Amino acid sequence: MIRRERLVVETQGRGFRDLTARVREAVARLAPDADGLAHLFCRHTSCSLLITENADPDVRADLERLARRWAPDGDPAYAHRIEGPDDMAAHARSVLTGCALTVPFEKGRLLLGTWQGIYLWEHRTTPHLRELLLTVLT
Amino acid sequence: MIRRERLVVETQGRGFRDLTARVREAVARLAPDADGLAHLFCRHTSCSLLITENADPDVRADLERLARRWAPDGDPAYAHRIEGPDDMAAHARSVLTGCALTVPFEKGRLLLGTWQGIYLWEHRTTPHLRELLLTVLT
Amino acid sequence: MIRRERLVVETQGRGFRDLTARVREAVARLAPDADGLAHLFCRHTSCSLLITENADPDVRADLERLARRWAPDGDPAYAHRIEGPDDMAAHARSVLTGCALTVPFEKGRLLLGTWQGIYLWEHRTTPHLRELLLTVLT
Repeated sequence: MIRRERLVVETQGRGFRDLTARVREAVARLAPDADGLAHLFCRHTSCSLLITENADPDVRADLERLARRWAPDGDPAYAHRIEGPDDMAAHARSVLTGCALTVPFEKGRLLLGTWQGIYLWEHRTTPHLRELLLTVLT
Repeated sequence: MIRRERLVVETQGRGFRDLTARVREAVARLAPDADGLAHLFCRHTSCSLLITENADPDVRADLERLARRWAPDGDPAYAHRIEGPDDMAAHARSVLTGCALTVPFEKGRLLLGTWQGIYLWEHRTTPHLRELLLTVLT
Repeated sequence: MIRRERLVVETQGRGFRDLTARVREAVARLAPDADGLAHLFCRHTSCSLLITENADPDVRADLERLARRWAPDGDPAYAHRIEGPDDMAAHARSVLTGCALTVPFEKGRLLLGTWQGIYLWEHRTTPHLRELLLTVLT
């Protein structure tokens, strides 16, 4: 069986938003007591969905430092500069880190590891409204 | 219910092939009026499947420029050089950007965002036939 | 229908463990004669699951060389250093290369391409026990 819900996430410019609690709550509500897979999809090309360490905020700060090397803002090699120096960098970060996740659950409870959190990573420097689709397969 | 179709994509050396229309058409045909998830899988280790910006071709050109930094062709550090300077670079690009995508659909219509396109990224410099498997879950 | 199995993988420090045979065997056992998707999920943030070339071990050695550039051990920019110089590097490698895979199968047989293998990539320099969840959808 397929159940789906739309999640809207407000970002405040570049940085991470922890979605773990929202996804846990939605899966528990859509599929209480069921086993299955939860698929989270982001309908944008300049932010990412990722799973990473949930305990030390320094991990996310360091990921941000590394991403600036992987795809520098305002790199002179870029041809795509329409929306500013973070525009092409954001598309590249999104390609490198992905726009979808699939996570198993059991009896309505996400089977994340102890140290795993689900994050939206906003790559644009200005605030955005991001639309996600959560699909629950049981 | 599971339905599956094989897609063959002819590439013309390194570059992007837009698969959005083909995937849209196949999902609409395999699961008209149904809700579900479409999974696209590439059976190769030297090309990628990715979702990126569909409007400005400069974005793909810039991704190509960045990929040459992430995994340079003919890097002196490579031990794997069997098929030429693009061989190991292609495997590394494939690992970084992935060989599978899962996209939600509703009533047979893919729920991509306005600016999202589905692309095969050929990483080898010579033309190849690439075999993809589209699996539709409803 | 959903079937699930837990796989435990013992790693011996940084490097690749070939899981292809174990995943093939488990899918054949859980869903003999059925068509579907196999989802493999790693419950950790410092190792990866990936599909890459299965013939020449030099490919994996070269991926390791590249990963040391993508996320250097002990980089002076890192704030997260709790567990040593490989700690933050391991989280970054995991984000770049992913912690889950979805692979199609037919009549209980994984539809990997000829040159595709499924690997766990341990990013920590010391041995770890890694817990994976294999979910089979038919």
